[in-house]
Amino acid sequence: MLNKERPRRGLMLILSGPSGAGKTVLSRQLLSEYKDMELSISATTRAPRPGEVDGKHYYFLDEAKFRQMAENDEFLEWAEVFGAFYGTPRAAVEKALEEGRDVLFDIDWQGAQQLKQAAASDLVKVFILPPSLEELEARLRKRDQDSNGVIEERMNRARDEISHWGEYHYVIVNEDVDQSMNDLRAILAAERRLRKRQPWLNDFVRNLIQPF
Amino acid sequence: MLNKERPRRGLMLILSGPSGAGKTVLSRQLLSEYKDMELSISATTRAPRPGEVDGKHYYFLDEAKFRQMAENDEFLEWAEVFGAFYGTPRAAVEKALEEGRDVLFDIDWQGAQQLKQAAASDLVKVFILPPSLEELEARLRKRDQDSNGVIEERMNRARDEISHWGEYHYVIVNEDVDQSMNDLRAILAAERRLRKRQPWLNDFVRNLIQPF
Repeated sequence: MLNKERPRRGLMLILSGPSGAGKTVLSRQLLSEYKDMELSISATTRAPRPGEVDGKHYYFLDEAKFRQMAENDEFLEWAEVFGAFYGTPRAAVEKALEEGRDVLFDIDWQGAQQLKQAAASDLVKVFILPPSLEELEARLRKRDQDSNGVIEERMNRARDEISHWGEYHYVIVNEDVDQSMNDLRAILAAERRLRKRQPWLNDFVRNLIQPF
Repeated sequence: MLNKERPRRGLMLILSGPSGAGKTVLSRQLLSEYKDMELSISATTRAPRPGEVDGKHYYFLDEAKFRQMAENDEFLEWAEVFGAFYGTPRAAVEKALEEGRDVLFDIDWQGAQQLKQAAASDLVKVFILPPSLEELEARLRKRDQDSNGVIEERMNRARDEISHWGEYHYVIVNEDVDQSMNDLRAILAAERRLRKRQPWLNDFVRNLIQPF
């Protein structure tokens, strides 16, 4: 039996963790490695920034359209941030899952909580932790040359994010990107072998146990 | 932080599937590859057969001792089969799990159901399917030169076993042992990254988010 005869249901891979834990590097590597994985694209009512492409970085919508979609329950989650609306269009995600593609969400704990409208069985929630507080601080300092005050503010935000680690299925301490990628590959391979993600098995087993 | 400072809780890996699906080959390969995995050893009141070693193939107990253990709730499951008692001693499994070793159970759907006394969170249930009915029959015929009547009886038993596939977390269609081993390795690696299997994270995160 060929793989194309075994359609799988895709999954929603949620990567959360404090900034500085290494989520972005891992997300990029996943997307370049897995051709059947795509980054979730949000819709927003804010104006495009220079270089931002509609349908790639965001779906740019006017407020009337956004409100109408929200009313029609066409978002998996949406929120208003500083006067602009942001949301995850349900249809694009559902289409990907049905076609056997995974959708990656690089979001914080609040975004992850808001995805509660998605089917729980589609969600694979992974929390990325830094190896130590010192390492986290060093990574944040390296990232740019902020004053100590800004670093402290970021460390506080990191602590707040980390305090939500208990809401995730898997936890990876990202000491080494290669090792963390191995963990993520194993998680994806295992999740694909879950009974619930192999709907083709229903027919397969029916054929297997039919009388001669 | 070294691995030895990250004690994990072991898991109970249940492999079920019809005879001829390839469970035994996969079990042997797992046990030879994973030094921190051991095969569950049952207790029984039946007499040892030639070559059977107490504490290796079975724990051989007299009936009074077995009944006393059953009364003291010292078995994860037990059953009487043709006048002899069989059971899984709870203490040995619990000790392995606490020490971070996995315990492999090569058992049928009835044995798996009876393990309900174990903590559900310790169980990782994998069902192994043959690639086709024809392949299953060919494997059973190859195994020994039984008459057609015995083969048919075995095929019926296989169908009965297969009909319980829906009670398992993971399903692997064993077309190729190497591919199935890859799936099992991924399942083990992913399950070890589950939050609930990394109890050391509680202290780790507490240290991570403590104020300066």
